[in-house]
Amino acid sequence: MKWETMLLEEDCLKLIDQRKIPQEIEYFKARDYQQVIFAIREMVVRGAPAIGATAAHGVYLAAVEFKDLENEDFQKEMDRAMQELAESRPTAVNLTWGIRRMEKIVKESEILERGKLLEKLLKESRTIAREDVEINKELGRVGQKIIPPGAAVLSHCNTGALATVGFGTALGVIRAAHAAGKNIKVFVDETRPRLQGARLNAFELLEEGIPATLIVDSTAAVLMQKGEVDVIVVGADRIAANGDTANKIGTFMLSQLAKVFNIPFYIAAPISTIDFNLDGGEDIEIEERDPREITHWQEQPIAPEGINVFNPAFDVTPAENITGIITEKGIVQAPFKENLASIAPGGDKG
Amino acid sequence: MKWETMLLEEDCLKLIDQRKIPQEIEYFKARDYQQVIFAIREMVVRGAPAIGATAAHGVYLAAVEFKDLENEDFQKEMDRAMQELAESRPTAVNLTWGIRRMEKIVKESEILERGKLLEKLLKESRTIAREDVEINKELGRVGQKIIPPGAAVLSHCNTGALATVGFGTALGVIRAAHAAGKNIKVFVDETRPRLQGARLNAFELLEEGIPATLIVDSTAAVLMQKGEVDVIVVGADRIAANGDTANKIGTFMLSQLAKVFNIPFYIAAPISTIDFNLDGGEDIEIEERDPREITHWQEQPIAPEGINVFNPAFDVTPAENITGIITEKGIVQAPFKENLASIAPGGDKG
Repeated sequence: MKWETMLLEEDCLKLIDQRKIPQEIEYFKARDYQQVIFAIREMVVRGAPAIGATAAHGVYLAAVEFKDLENEDFQKEMDRAMQELAESRPTAVNLTWGIRRMEKIVKESEILERGKLLEKLLKESRTIAREDVEINKELGRVGQKIIPPGAAVLSHCNTGALATVGFGTALGVIRAAHAAGKNIKVFVDETRPRLQGARLNAFELLEEGIPATLIVDSTAAVLMQKGEVDVIVVGADRIAANGDTANKIGTFMLSQLAKVFNIPFYIAAPISTIDFNLDGGEDIEIEERDPREITHWQEQPIAPEGINVFNPAFDVTPAENITGIITEKGIVQAPFKENLASIAPGGDKG
Repeated sequence: MKWETMLLEEDCLKLIDQRKIPQEIEYFKARDYQQVIFAIREMVVRGAPAIGATAAHGVYLAAVEFKDLENEDFQKEMDRAMQELAESRPTAVNLTWGIRRMEKIVKESEILERGKLLEKLLKESRTIAREDVEINKELGRVGQKIIPPGAAVLSHCNTGALATVGFGTALGVIRAAHAAGKNIKVFVDETRPRLQGARLNAFELLEEGIPATLIVDSTAAVLMQKGEVDVIVVGADRIAANGDTANKIGTFMLSQLAKVFNIPFYIAAPISTIDFNLDGGEDIEIEERDPREITHWQEQPIAPEGINVFNPAFDVTPAENITGIITEKGIVQAPFKENLASIAPGGDKG
């Protein structure tokens, strides 16, 4: 690849500006944690694993900003910064997960010399990023088994290197299957309203030389009906302990049609996307975004002024619609509650 | 309404330019049948009943153009013009239906004085248009019975006055239910790729003061799952003799989900949309349109250059997914083959 999703530098965070792909490959430079929040909220960077790593580096940048404060003030400012970062988007659990990992180190601020603390925070942020790439590669290695040779795979939203620190989740599985010489092809849902499929997934697939065909989201049903889709793999923003999965709007539709047409439907996500504190999908907060994502194309109106809009960014796919959840620790199948618990960090091994 | 979908004038056809709504209300003036073909192909005008009436007036304009030719040459040019008009878009059967009605008069050209012929053609074109409005009103009157008081209705594509000469088919049913004081609300699928829902249906509903909420197409599934949709009414571009229905891409998806969630799913279309010569939906030709409808917004690229695209304009909903077909002669239910035959022009009365 000729680009990196993010570069974790000592004085800033460089993010490839995903609002501008494919027209431009340009980096957005976040110099402080407020700009990191802006980048997450405005979707300069998106994708659950990517925003987890982004927020973690945001915590580091906050510490750089407040480094000259006394312990008590430092801790107070850091708590506020971490809180604001955590609230930048509500659905992806990786966001809080990334921040919690940094918070553990921030809590040591009283005993650590400030320079040492910054060093540890930078190191942890970079570890989170490096681990994300490693986890994705493992996830791809594990997951590509579900892709039969010659398969047509349906993808939704962007789940590639751009949605993560590198390699990707669902697109990582596709990447790994392609690298294994399976001669696959991919149908790419454009994924309204933000068009992450058309703009980002199509871009990554073209770059990799994986045969890909772009469709509008509602064409997927016809392809499934005609037997032209062999398997569906999508990502996740939050997975409840029972396997219910929040992911980009449109995922539920695909899962329901997959069930009707007996097409295997997989989620690919790192374990950090599983929220073991949530019993079921009904408790997942679904972000509603700006109506202008639907009513406007950039600054130009598409719809008549004054029209009411419902714009949920995600939906929840019930576990019963899911064939398996591909994680770095293996493919989890029903019963999800028990089987997910067995791969929980610190949980029982299955 | 402050506008008309089309004005059938003696020297031209004025069409409200549907590519520009809602940003601009502007008329496209087709001065000859070639410009009528352009208007149909480029979707200045769209909607099966609307393009049927448009093509009919195109036949009249061709006759004006060739009026000074000798009988044999006149007939030859007219045959060619009607053929070209019929081929301007492949899926909507109303197109050929409208042309056939005009053709019957053209066939009389040998016995009719030319001025008389033009008069008859203009009259027939205007009759087709007037009848379309009357049929739609009847269709609305008949169809509104299926909308319960207080219902949330899901709509797809544009099926209103803009898709017809006036009033509309599925939106006509909604209009009639609203006029009957049923206190309904409408969810409007934006309908990618051409956004006829966002641009046109939303525009008509706002104008009528009918409460409407715009969604991306893949949000419909979630609303159905949550029980927030009481009934679905869509239009049709061609209905086979067995009830299989070609309509805007995305219709099949809705019908399949409606089946899963036990939501009544209706087609609203004039009898002229039924192709009694076609046994089933598998024989309906599905138009594939320019990839740029998906890869570009106006002249601006959305997707990476070189990406492969599949862009069918329509899909086919099998009769088994359809609760009823609302026509001006009543609501037809299963068994569709027998019951549609009973309302066929010249067929047995049921």
